[in-house]
Amino acid sequence: MLKTIMQNVKDKAPLVHNITNYVTVNDCANILLACGAAPIMADDIEEVVEITSLCNGLNINIGTLNSRTIAAMLAAAKQANALANPILLDPVGAGASQLRTNTAIELIKTVPFTVIRGNISEIKTLALGTSTTQGVDAAASDKIDFDHFDDSIAFIKALAKQTGAVIVVTGEIDLIVSDSQVACVYNGHAMMRRVTGTGCQLSALITAYLAANRQKPFEAAVTAVVAYGLAGELAAERMTAQDGNIAYRNYLIDAVYNLTPAILEQGAKYEYR
Amino acid sequence: MLKTIMQNVKDKAPLVHNITNYVTVNDCANILLACGAAPIMADDIEEVVEITSLCNGLNINIGTLNSRTIAAMLAAAKQANALANPILLDPVGAGASQLRTNTAIELIKTVPFTVIRGNISEIKTLALGTSTTQGVDAAASDKIDFDHFDDSIAFIKALAKQTGAVIVVTGEIDLIVSDSQVACVYNGHAMMRRVTGTGCQLSALITAYLAANRQKPFEAAVTAVVAYGLAGELAAERMTAQDGNIAYRNYLIDAVYNLTPAILEQGAKYEYR
Amino acid sequence: MLKTIMQNVKDKAPLVHNITNYVTVNDCANILLACGAAPIMADDIEEVVEITSLCNGLNINIGTLNSRTIAAMLAAAKQANALANPILLDPVGAGASQLRTNTAIELIKTVPFTVIRGNISEIKTLALGTSTTQGVDAAASDKIDFDHFDDSIAFIKALAKQTGAVIVVTGEIDLIVSDSQVACVYNGHAMMRRVTGTGCQLSALITAYLAANRQKPFEAAVTAVVAYGLAGELAAERMTAQDGNIAYRNYLIDAVYNLTPAILEQGAKYEYR
Repeated sequence: MLKTIMQNVKDKAPLVHNITNYVTVNDCANILLACGAAPIMADDIEEVVEITSLCNGLNINIGTLNSRTIAAMLAAAKQANALANPILLDPVGAGASQLRTNTAIELIKTVPFTVIRGNISEIKTLALGTSTTQGVDAAASDKIDFDHFDDSIAFIKALAKQTGAVIVVTGEIDLIVSDSQVACVYNGHAMMRRVTGTGCQLSALITAYLAANRQKPFEAAVTAVVAYGLAGELAAERMTAQDGNIAYRNYLIDAVYNLTPAILEQGAKYEYR
Repeated sequence: MLKTIMQNVKDKAPLVHNITNYVTVNDCANILLACGAAPIMADDIEEVVEITSLCNGLNINIGTLNSRTIAAMLAAAKQANALANPILLDPVGAGASQLRTNTAIELIKTVPFTVIRGNISEIKTLALGTSTTQGVDAAASDKIDFDHFDDSIAFIKALAKQTGAVIVVTGEIDLIVSDSQVACVYNGHAMMRRVTGTGCQLSALITAYLAANRQKPFEAAVTAVVAYGLAGELAAERMTAQDGNIAYRNYLIDAVYNLTPAILEQGAKYEYR
Repeated sequence: MLKTIMQNVKDKAPLVHNITNYVTVNDCANILLACGAAPIMADDIEEVVEITSLCNGLNINIGTLNSRTIAAMLAAAKQANALANPILLDPVGAGASQLRTNTAIELIKTVPFTVIRGNISEIKTLALGTSTTQGVDAAASDKIDFDHFDDSIAFIKALAKQTGAVIVVTGEIDLIVSDSQVACVYNGHAMMRRVTGTGCQLSALITAYLAANRQKPFEAAVTAVVAYGLAGELAAERMTAQDGNIAYRNYLIDAVYNLTPAILEQGAKYEYR
């Protein structure tokens, strides 16, 4: 399964429209190129409908939102939905400000998103209306309890059911949750938290995988999460004593570039629960 | 010729005003520093006239345009023109949306640009009003036919004549076209298409070359295109098995940094036709 | 002293709110992560008050300011001041345009900044109302005269007294000046001027140091300047013949990542005068 899903991205080279933050946008563009997709960034309301119509998928990231770009996000989301294109929401910092929380909620009320990807605090904010979000990182108190797994993820399943989206919660262990399926991904590396924008990069990558595998959003999300986590492990193997978080960022995107379906299958660590 | 043109950039260290997209802006700043020039970015209408007046050249890139920055582009272009400073237009994604196409056309109607640099689809859009632009990359159907070269580039020559600009069309082979001259540059490497913003970087570089060689815009454009293509070849020689598009981006800008007039002359592959 | 100040950053992991330019924002985020702090970027007036309230420090950089973000800067600064959080101003390009000069002056009139960090031309503009600022780099004519040191820095001391801020002037030798103290830092490397945004990175770093050492703003600023300068030296030692300014940027941030209190103390070159 993983191999075919990944090969489809390379074969179809989907064009992904990104309305994203200016902090990590360059890395998002390069990771899309690394995986075999192509990026376009456009955030003005006068053009987003046309741009998204050219594309195979839409990645909305609220990391540095403002009133101008929020309007563009809504317009683009409506058009992508009208075209039945996959749409991903990365609710960066939901819970950290009313503007972020309200914008994320307005977006998911306006159209059905294919995937919502965030950390546990962001997802909790969308699911429960409250969390202990601190800035753009997950709060320590917002942890999944793997000893009481089903209870612990009930609110994620409820969000999946309510929105129709596949919910991707990234953390030490990554969860991919739909109303009927749950997968846990054990790939990944602690260094990923020391680089800005690994969440943003993963959101861009998932969108490319969705765009090239329209009939299988759950499997596409699982595969992208595995691929990125495995790339994080391969990047960590290259680290030398003088390397730091920038070297790691570079190795990470380059690992995505060099990842093959065979390496992916061999390195995948995940299970359906 | 190439050596003198390049040395002038190092000697004069021109200050280049960039109104450019937020995706690749950091790379544009660093490539200007790499070649011996200095960058300044400013896109607000309240300051662009003053900023461009301090500078030796203006680089306008419409990659993430919006109504606020379009106004700034027009104001800066008028001022640079009034000062007889060289002005470059990079019509990123012209043909992909009406906003991009119309903005590019409005800009070239407002002032005479020194150079317009784009891929073949973007240039075709400006010259003919139509193309098969897909996102920000050239469409496969928009190819120069080198067996019928003169016919094939007639529309580019017409655009050069109409606008008074030197037209730079980048692709597998790069073309530099004025109303009276044509050059083909064979330097370059396929990896350049796997990195976001190589077109943007080249536009910034050309602007620096124009600013340091005011009397010779055609030669300056040819030299910058050769220099960047050669840097792309030198970067490719450094690639290892684990390197990907980020390593390549790093090697590319570093190759521009280390390029000398002697290396440039030795590695140049171009001809006037 | 240096060791404790630095260790506090690692132990407290302060969250820093940045309203900064889109040119170097990714590097600012990554250097904050490198030093043990955490970044958040938010520049919309509808959310900056909430965001800055979550944070331990505020870094305001006017590198690509516009009317929308200026309003956000003022609102965030007032809130950070109300919370007694440290606030840093990086007046990028003050003197290059009225908008930049006026915005910097309005900001320092609105709230007391903890630190103002700029090059000598920018600081001269704020202190004297005039300078020979050329773009975003210091003008050669704006040099500190170390043979007549006290006279030469009188205007900086006056600015410190007038604003209540610690003034950090970066150049070949870095100065940290309060109304009662002066320190000179001799760490650093000439390559730092060939990379875009080293000033912006340092401003972000200082803000993290201030946030983790609230009672000692002068010492925190000195320590951050020493740390960054030393990282610049360590980065230079890694340079190979094919490396250029991008490799240097990567080595620089990675050197900050790997810096320890022990290495810092051993490599520090500074004196109080």
